[in-house]
Amino acid sequence: MKKAYLDNAASTPVDQRVVEAMLPYFRDTFGNPVSFHEWGEQTSDAIETAREQVASLINGQPGEIIFTSCGTESNNLAIKGLAQSMTSKGKHLIVSAIEHFSVLHPVRALEKAGFEVTYVPVDEYGLIDPEQVAQNLRPDTVLVSIMHANGEVGTVQPIEDIAREVKDSGAIFHTDAVAAGGTIPIDVQKLGVDALSLAGNVFYGPQGTGALWLRHGTRLAPLLEGGIQETDFRSGTHNVPGIVGLGKAAELTKKEMEQHIDYLTSLRDTLIEGVLKDIEYSILTGHRQKRLPGHASFCIRFIEGEAMLAYLSSEGVAGASGSACTAKYLKSSHVLQAMGIPAETAQGSLIFTLGIENTKEDVELALKVLPPIVEKLRRISPLYSQFIKTEQRN
Amino acid sequence: MKKAYLDNAASTPVDQRVVEAMLPYFRDTFGNPVSFHEWGEQTSDAIETAREQVASLINGQPGEIIFTSCGTESNNLAIKGLAQSMTSKGKHLIVSAIEHFSVLHPVRALEKAGFEVTYVPVDEYGLIDPEQVAQNLRPDTVLVSIMHANGEVGTVQPIEDIAREVKDSGAIFHTDAVAAGGTIPIDVQKLGVDALSLAGNVFYGPQGTGALWLRHGTRLAPLLEGGIQETDFRSGTHNVPGIVGLGKAAELTKKEMEQHIDYLTSLRDTLIEGVLKDIEYSILTGHRQKRLPGHASFCIRFIEGEAMLAYLSSEGVAGASGSACTAKYLKSSHVLQAMGIPAETAQGSLIFTLGIENTKEDVELALKVLPPIVEKLRRISPLYSQFIKTEQRN
Repeated sequence: MKKAYLDNAASTPVDQRVVEAMLPYFRDTFGNPVSFHEWGEQTSDAIETAREQVASLINGQPGEIIFTSCGTESNNLAIKGLAQSMTSKGKHLIVSAIEHFSVLHPVRALEKAGFEVTYVPVDEYGLIDPEQVAQNLRPDTVLVSIMHANGEVGTVQPIEDIAREVKDSGAIFHTDAVAAGGTIPIDVQKLGVDALSLAGNVFYGPQGTGALWLRHGTRLAPLLEGGIQETDFRSGTHNVPGIVGLGKAAELTKKEMEQHIDYLTSLRDTLIEGVLKDIEYSILTGHRQKRLPGHASFCIRFIEGEAMLAYLSSEGVAGASGSACTAKYLKSSHVLQAMGIPAETAQGSLIFTLGIENTKEDVELALKVLPPIVEKLRRISPLYSQFIKTEQRN
Repeated sequence: MKKAYLDNAASTPVDQRVVEAMLPYFRDTFGNPVSFHEWGEQTSDAIETAREQVASLINGQPGEIIFTSCGTESNNLAIKGLAQSMTSKGKHLIVSAIEHFSVLHPVRALEKAGFEVTYVPVDEYGLIDPEQVAQNLRPDTVLVSIMHANGEVGTVQPIEDIAREVKDSGAIFHTDAVAAGGTIPIDVQKLGVDALSLAGNVFYGPQGTGALWLRHGTRLAPLLEGGIQETDFRSGTHNVPGIVGLGKAAELTKKEMEQHIDYLTSLRDTLIEGVLKDIEYSILTGHRQKRLPGHASFCIRFIEGEAMLAYLSSEGVAGASGSACTAKYLKSSHVLQAMGIPAETAQGSLIFTLGIENTKEDVELALKVLPPIVEKLRRISPLYSQFIKTEQRN
């Protein structure tokens, strides 16, 4: 049976060259990098090389990279750690309404602890207006966190423009680049941000790896305390093979990104055009141009995302609906809601995210199996029959 | 050049069988376990198998295992998460004076946030008296955290006896079993604890893996928020290969532990007897019998641990001094200090920790190279010459 994995936003296969880079660090070179002997020096050197590789991907300094265990940890560390180290200035935060839950939940925790939060709205394409951020800045605003790209609708935000607005306010600007990192070019100097979250498993690096880039001199309260790792910002024995893999993945994606973008954009556009053409009452979610290269997201009206995913999986195709992190617990997406998409339409959320191992055949398979699935599900959909009756009446 | 890695407490080589178990999960089976398709189901099944394997190692239930990224995260999650979920009962904590910094630093953070902490002392062997814990229990005591075994001196605590004292107080009992887990038999039912921390890289599993066992029904505030993983106790994309490796390591160590203990105890005793016999003015730290199987720790008087480690490393031998996590930043060990060892003696801390890949030859190498190193260092030690002068005068 032919299969097509089109859920690369949730996790990518690890590049074979990354696996090979990691392998020596399980048994041959396995010391604890903080140990005072040859074994420790070898792994300490290895993580410093990885630090350079990750810094280079985003044009940061190696000393500004804090290794974490995942994108969620990077975001939690940034939100809680930055806000809590700035309380002398104030307790006001600004985030967008469409942030990932690993930003929104920590923000809610801070709200309970006495912080005040402004949620900046988005337009119908999921785009944030930099002016809206500027208008909400206050003297007591300590942290602005706006994601670089959204994993559910693929929209890429004008981070540079937002940063320009935040720059002189004295607030720290963090961007969750978990969906964007390693996928589109990122230059922290050009963006003008102060902190940026990354995760390795979205650009062909290993699961269980992430990083927070933190501009030199920025204060941060740690989440995990007790050792001396990562200049006290993140204690805990280093995951040496993972960090080596993250570094290698960063190196590879930097080198190959341009060709990846061309390839993925072409596949994506075929997929988007195919779905919109072949499936009646389907809409593209997110912006048509300002979107991640491999990201194709839709609402297929009158049916439920969960049912589509189940049928797609039985036909060998992996997709997603709503956020990757809540796929198994489908609720109406807060992202689609913020974009003004009615709940009835939003429930038909369908997301295909392409990766460099996908082929034209994968896209063809998805386009082949989707229409009959949609037809089958609509046949039993009360919403659809009601809609058709109303249409016929008019 | 012959080499001997005798720093297994800091990190062990990953068992070849563990590496092989992990390998398919990098490229062949790489889905996000929360995704709603075949790829996600495969990895979801894999982590549930690992959950059973880890639970089985300590006689817990699979549903009571929370996967983390390291022992430090397990301890931070336990200390902060348990204390903060119990504030309606009170704000008093009890820990021992010799806990690892990943317990002590979170405890200090809680102290700053208004909690009151009692530090229970230890005797000259690093042993905690259960009576001392009992005497310090108060109606507002919410959490007692006493480590199972100490990584610096190897002493194994009478956890079962301490738990018996804590049992009826209404306080939660957590034990940091990072140094003990996978090394000596642990049965959470027999121990009578409520929460227990583990780390994979001390029993031949991968770095970047850990677990917190939490007795069913115990409340816990999460540290990492935002997803739906680990029943909301720990969000973030699962490190599937790492978790699979942790599970395999748990399965293997459970099966082979008895023979490991016999083997390591025998090597350890040769090493301890050799050092004490060959090095004048050396003392064993920790308890002679109630200690971890592979753990040999000493104070070599009149010289500094750091210098010993450097010379040992140049002779191909890896050891440690003080805690693994602070080895590069040698300060007087809080553990040795709590045991009443004078600072001058404590600075000569030397720790050899044996693993299953060590051989008799490794021990022989350490015993061969250590005496001339000590002699060389004492020759230039002002402390030693002063001591000798005083001795000669008497």
